[in-house]
Amino acid sequence: MQKGLLSVLLVLVTFSSTMEGKLDKTTEKKEKRVPQTLSRGWGDQLIWAQTYEEALFWSRSKNKPLMVIFHLEDCPHSQALKKAFAEDKDIQNLVDEEFIILNLVYETTDKHLSPDGQYVPRILFVDPSMTVRADITGRYSNRMYAYEPADMKLLLSNMQRALKLLKTEL
Amino acid sequence: MQKGLLSVLLVLVTFSSTMEGKLDKTTEKKEKRVPQTLSRGWGDQLIWAQTYEEALFWSRSKNKPLMVIFHLEDCPHSQALKKAFAEDKDIQNLVDEEFIILNLVYETTDKHLSPDGQYVPRILFVDPSMTVRADITGRYSNRMYAYEPADMKLLLSNMQRALKLLKTEL
Repeated sequence: MQKGLLSVLLVLVTFSSTMEGKLDKTTEKKEKRVPQTLSRGWGDQLIWAQTYEEALFWSRSKNKPLMVIFHLEDCPHSQALKKAFAEDKDIQNLVDEEFIILNLVYETTDKHLSPDGQYVPRILFVDPSMTVRADITGRYSNRMYAYEPADMKLLLSNMQRALKLLKTEL
Repeated sequence: MQKGLLSVLLVLVTFSSTMEGKLDKTTEKKEKRVPQTLSRGWGDQLIWAQTYEEALFWSRSKNKPLMVIFHLEDCPHSQALKKAFAEDKDIQNLVDEEFIILNLVYETTDKHLSPDGQYVPRILFVDPSMTVRADITGRYSNRMYAYEPADMKLLLSNMQRALKLLKTEL
């Protein structure tokens, strides 16, 4: 990532935080809030698990691999990835048919879900035997589980790999 | 709870399960699903935590007691309590101002959240020091953390008790 771009992103984060601050102050109590969704915009048509425990339970009982997306609402990298993820029909369809899916804005206590640190966005696969597939990585050596919007084909092939490993090993 | 009423409720559970089965079969893939909300109908205007870890974090950092509601979507007792809870303006306002709130349809691994067993619906209070307030109970000796729709005043006074304990003890 170029330094120039990084500064722009930092400015964006600062700007959006400022905006939120303003909204907090100007939003009247009586104003209707939009209900929070479990999808948080990563795919409103998918069935989302709420917690890691719930996701592991469904993964085991349905014998489907689990995909865990760590992200933050006010992180521009997360937002860009979310848009690409939500708009990619192949990924959405494959998730719907073959995966248990969970998105989290808060880290779990399970260190296996942060093999190379806690950062966002990152995507981890877990198989129904509850093993985190640390071998399924993206293309960045310093943040092995990070994906960018341009990496949707790699993500799709990683999803297929998670399914293939599942069939071979179980 | 009278036995007669229980049988009626059991029939209701069976009936609603059957209905769901039918819906599953007749719903076409292309049909739009309604996005799942974090509130699940317990108060769309409240800010809900997604996981217990997240809720504990917010409870500590905002110094507000946490209220955890365990329920199930196809449990008529849960549904009845949900309706009463969502429609009670005093409760909704007090939650909005003074509490961190979480609803779960899947148990956590923390046994402190099930002092007298895992059943639904049940409501537990946790204070910001992360202590489960097992002393704040409902009116049923066999299910100490259960509430019925008629118990909203007791629930409200328990909420006020959780706030009072907080102020006295911290």
